[in-house]
Amino acid sequence: MGEFELIRKHFLPVAQTVPAAALVLGPGDDCAIQRVPAQHELVFSIDTMVEGVHFPNSYPADRLAWRALAAAASDLAAMGADPVCFTLAVTLPAAEEPWLSAFSRGLAAASQAFGLALAGGDTTRGPLTVTLQVHGVVPVGQALRRDGAQAGDLICVSGTLGDAGAALDYLATDEPTPDQSAVLARYHRPRPRLALGRSLIGRASAAIDVSDGLLADLQHLLDASAVGATVEPSKIPLSPALRHLKGEQALRYALYTGDDYELCVTLAPANWQALPDREREALTVIGTVESARGLRLQGDTGAAGDTGGFDHFRRDS
Amino acid sequence: MGEFELIRKHFLPVAQTVPAAALVLGPGDDCAIQRVPAQHELVFSIDTMVEGVHFPNSYPADRLAWRALAAAASDLAAMGADPVCFTLAVTLPAAEEPWLSAFSRGLAAASQAFGLALAGGDTTRGPLTVTLQVHGVVPVGQALRRDGAQAGDLICVSGTLGDAGAALDYLATDEPTPDQSAVLARYHRPRPRLALGRSLIGRASAAIDVSDGLLADLQHLLDASAVGATVEPSKIPLSPALRHLKGEQALRYALYTGDDYELCVTLAPANWQALPDREREALTVIGTVESARGLRLQGDTGAAGDTGGFDHFRRDS
Repeated sequence: MGEFELIRKHFLPVAQTVPAAALVLGPGDDCAIQRVPAQHELVFSIDTMVEGVHFPNSYPADRLAWRALAAAASDLAAMGADPVCFTLAVTLPAAEEPWLSAFSRGLAAASQAFGLALAGGDTTRGPLTVTLQVHGVVPVGQALRRDGAQAGDLICVSGTLGDAGAALDYLATDEPTPDQSAVLARYHRPRPRLALGRSLIGRASAAIDVSDGLLADLQHLLDASAVGATVEPSKIPLSPALRHLKGEQALRYALYTGDDYELCVTLAPANWQALPDREREALTVIGTVESARGLRLQGDTGAAGDTGGFDHFRRDS
Repeated sequence: MGEFELIRKHFLPVAQTVPAAALVLGPGDDCAIQRVPAQHELVFSIDTMVEGVHFPNSYPADRLAWRALAAAASDLAAMGADPVCFTLAVTLPAAEEPWLSAFSRGLAAASQAFGLALAGGDTTRGPLTVTLQVHGVVPVGQALRRDGAQAGDLICVSGTLGDAGAALDYLATDEPTPDQSAVLARYHRPRPRLALGRSLIGRASAAIDVSDGLLADLQHLLDASAVGATVEPSKIPLSPALRHLKGEQALRYALYTGDDYELCVTLAPANWQALPDREREALTVIGTVESARGLRLQGDTGAAGDTGGFDHFRRDS
C-alpha cells in the first residue's frame, strides 16, 4: 500500500475526530491553513519520539500515539495556550495494518481528549520515529513564558511527580503489584494540564512543563528568569504508590525523572492567595524564588546547598 | 555534549540569521510564538527526510540541510504563501562536531535564501532523520489550492523538469561530465519557487509543487479539482543537459521523477494572457484542463490515451 493510501485509510478518519473551526484547510493539499483569531497569537512546538530512546521497543502503538500527542500538548499547557491542531510526521519500517490501526485509534482518542485536530502530516519509510507539532492560540502578549519569575514568587507543581519515572522501571514487570499498576497507568496515559495552564494566564509569572525532571526543568525556568530558588523536598507531592517506596527512591524519581507532564509554575504570593479553589487544589507550593542564582534544596546535608550537593539523589549515580 | 549545548552552539546562531518581526518568541521556551497579520491566515506543512530513503547515505550535511528546507519551502510556494519561519526536528546517531557545523551552515544559507527564520526545534538521538515544518501567511481565502482547476484552464510548469531525477542516477559518478555536473547542481541546491508562487495569487486557479513527479503531482491536482487533462509531452521544458540524452530518457525523468521542486499550476487563458512578463517567462504551457476525468498524454501510441498507456515511460519498468 502506497503512502497516499496509507494516509487516507488510517489518518484521514482521525482528522474528522475533532471539528476545528479555526482549521480552514486540513490534510490533502501542499499545506494546511489555520485562522488565528484577532488579538491572538499562534503558539507552537515540535517534538520527536524515537523507538528505543523515548519509548521502549515494541511499545503498543495506541499508547505511543497517546503519549506522543500528550507530550507535545504539554508544551501548549505550559504556555497557557488554547489547543487547536497538530501535524504528524511518522516514519515506519513497514506498513503493518494492525500497528497502523492501533496507532490511529490511540491518536484519535488523544486528539479528542486534548481538543487537537489533525491538520496534516507526512508518512515515510525508515526506523520508527514519531514527530508531532502542536498549535495553540493565546491572547496577544499573554502567553506563560519561562522568563517572568521574580524573587519572592512561590514555586508550585501540579499533581504528583515521579510516577512516570518509576513506571519506566516497572515496564518489564510481568505481574505488577497494585502500586506498580497505578504508576504504569500514568506512564501509558499522561494527561497534559491544558485546562490548568489556560486558567493560569494572567496569574502565573512563569511556567514550564516537567518533561526532563523537576530539577532540570525548574533550572531552565530560573535561568530564563535570571533568578534562583530554594525548594523544600519534603513538600514535593508524591502519589500514594510512590510513598510506599523505601528510603529516598520516591524523591529521586520526583526530582530527576520526567514524563509526568505536570506543570511547574511561579506565582506572586498575592496571586496564589487569589487563585480559584480548583487551581489551588491542583497545585502544591514547593519552594520560593530568590534573587540569588542557583537552585538550593532545603535540608540537603543539613543545610541549603546547591543542587550539585544533591548528587546522591541522581538516578544514574 | 548534551542536547541543550548542542542546540545552543549550532542551531541558535541560525535563529539569528533571518530577522522575523512576526516571530514574537523564538527557540528556548516550551513553545515559539508567531503573530499572524490581520486579514491573513497561517499556512503550514511538515516534511520528513530519512537517510537512505530521501537522501543517500553519508550525504554531505550542508546539502542535506539546504535540500530539506527547500523541499519544505516548496510547499509554501505551491500555496502562494509568504514564508515566515520553520521548526526543525533532527534525529542524529551521534553528536559529531563537523557534521553539526556543516548542517547548521547549510541551514543558515537556506534560511536566509528563503526568508525562513528558525523558530524552534527538537534534537534527539537515533537514525538520521530530518523533519521540518514551514510556516507562511496568505491573505484570507487567497491561498493557491489544488482544488480550483476548471475545464479550459491552461496547465503550466515552471523552469525545467527532470534534472534532479537524472542527478540521482549520477550521484555515484566519480568524474561527472559537464552535463552531469549541471543536473547534479540542481539536485544539491534546489530553489523553491517562492516569488513565483506569491505572484500567482489571484491569477492561478490551482497549484501543486512537483515533488513526486509531474504526472503523479498533476494527477493529485486534477483529482482534487474533479477534472481531467491532456498534456503534450513535446512541450515539457527540458534543460540543455537533459536534451542531450538519447531516446525517451529525458522525458521519462521529466514525467516520473520529482525533487526539482518546480510548480505545476493551472490558469484561465485570460489570466495567462494578462500575466506580467516575468511570470510568463518562468512558466511553460504544457496542456489543457478538460472536464473528462483522466490524464491523457498527446501522441501516446499515435493518439491521446490515459497515462496507463504510458507505462513504457515508467522509470522502474
